[in-house]
Amino acid sequence: MIARRMALVLVRTIAEARAAVRRAKREGKRVGFVPTMGYLHEGHLRLVDLCRERADYCAVSVFVNPTQFGPGEDYERYPRDLERDRRLLEARGVDLLFAPSVEEMYPEPPLIRFQIEKLADHLCGPRRPGHFPGVLLVVTKLFHILEPDVAVFGQKDLQQLVIVKRLVRDLNFPVEIVAGPTVREPDGLAMSSRNEYLSPEEREKATVLYRALQRAKALVEGGERSAAAVLAAMRDVIERVEGVRLDYVEAVELETLQPVERLEGRVALAVAAFVGPARLIDNLVLDVRDGQVREVPAID
Amino acid sequence: MIARRMALVLVRTIAEARAAVRRAKREGKRVGFVPTMGYLHEGHLRLVDLCRERADYCAVSVFVNPTQFGPGEDYERYPRDLERDRRLLEARGVDLLFAPSVEEMYPEPPLIRFQIEKLADHLCGPRRPGHFPGVLLVVTKLFHILEPDVAVFGQKDLQQLVIVKRLVRDLNFPVEIVAGPTVREPDGLAMSSRNEYLSPEEREKATVLYRALQRAKALVEGGERSAAAVLAAMRDVIERVEGVRLDYVEAVELETLQPVERLEGRVALAVAAFVGPARLIDNLVLDVRDGQVREVPAID
Repeated sequence: MIARRMALVLVRTIAEARAAVRRAKREGKRVGFVPTMGYLHEGHLRLVDLCRERADYCAVSVFVNPTQFGPGEDYERYPRDLERDRRLLEARGVDLLFAPSVEEMYPEPPLIRFQIEKLADHLCGPRRPGHFPGVLLVVTKLFHILEPDVAVFGQKDLQQLVIVKRLVRDLNFPVEIVAGPTVREPDGLAMSSRNEYLSPEEREKATVLYRALQRAKALVEGGERSAAAVLAAMRDVIERVEGVRLDYVEAVELETLQPVERLEGRVALAVAAFVGPARLIDNLVLDVRDGQVREVPAID
Repeated sequence: MIARRMALVLVRTIAEARAAVRRAKREGKRVGFVPTMGYLHEGHLRLVDLCRERADYCAVSVFVNPTQFGPGEDYERYPRDLERDRRLLEARGVDLLFAPSVEEMYPEPPLIRFQIEKLADHLCGPRRPGHFPGVLLVVTKLFHILEPDVAVFGQKDLQQLVIVKRLVRDLNFPVEIVAGPTVREPDGLAMSSRNEYLSPEEREKATVLYRALQRAKALVEGGERSAAAVLAAMRDVIERVEGVRLDYVEAVELETLQPVERLEGRVALAVAAFVGPARLIDNLVLDVRDGQVREVPAID
């Protein structure tokens, strides 16, 4: 029997999405899911590849979720191009594209929301109040609509990944969460839909986040274990570039995302900076033990 | 072919519960679920009957959930008798009894919790801070473990029922919520595991909650539409009984649980009172329109 390659199905309603996934499940298929806000780049598409490796049926959502944007953030101007996304996903072998309207996802203001202890106290959490609760709201809705067996999240959004993993563990979601490594441009810049906001000159300067992380890695590999010393070096790299405004550099323990003084065990070095109109983030996860330093591109 | 009556299966772990339900689903069965805190009475068992009418496979949980009890409440002394519960459920045709330990349900303190807007601002909400978020936490966990198609909740716990219905709507849980009417003793007292706490004398006095609600109903049927007048009459009935301490009487709109001044549309009259060592609650849902007053024993 020849496996026939099915075309991608695009659905706009919850009922259609549910029906499509349930059909796949009745056929005994393992369902994988990649949530996105669209305007896809190679970073997203590698998550799709991971999803297809781990599931028989691959669903992707494209939804710019208003509840995870704060006032004054870039919800309105966030780039959108569904037809381009559809083509890219079809070429990558995706089975289902779920692209609901805001009205379909939020027909009324939700009265039930999430509250996050500890995990949102540092990094982007305090700078974007309401962001992670909004992410958990939409992720939960999407999980309940698409009922995936496995879902793939990019490690570029490390705090989101750690919080979603904890959501799944605390609330017993029947979903396996898989991390996808950050995909970078040849010069090291982490791929992001928000890179779109950058002028050619800003695009050049934006590599400073990666360079700061590489400087940090070299220091730790050289034996430095003081978080303060490594963060100071990162800050120094970033502050030398005119037109780049540092938002934060932090070193945190991976499980709880609490700041550490010593770089030992599984730690993340994370950076956020404004480059022109774009707020960019990047990070590096290190496993430091017995004098060995290992980069962890995808946490388990 | 003769349908063989299967015996009840008692499981204590999440993995066993999941496996049992998934087996039933693979056989094409529709799964129903009744969450309880055990020490079952006829009220619970009628919920089981409703569940069996609407599903092919009926799962019941017995779990006294610590996260929904506040400091100084009756978590420790809440009555427990799993062997008796097991026998009652088996006789009623239940397929699966899930009775996990606290360690199984909460191996570590959860960092992800629920926050409820509006719906917990009145009635039991302000008197039991943390109660309804704790209910949503355990209900969500149980829904994710047992993956029911339909779940049955008693209308005696009206605020819980309304909040759970909203949880399901806001978060797109693939579960249908069915309300079960309050079951009463011959003298009107709503069945509750907490009636166990009452001495014979207190048991007698406890009927005052029902009598207050009946007085309210008679007034509304007689044409009274002022919430203040009806609540005053209820208060009067309750305050006449020595040893009964009123916690609240309130009249609220059913959808949002906000107080109303006029008894029109779908409204709930709700009462809570301390009778000896027990805090008891009861309520009455009325649909008042076009001069007609209809009691709604099970909301949709």
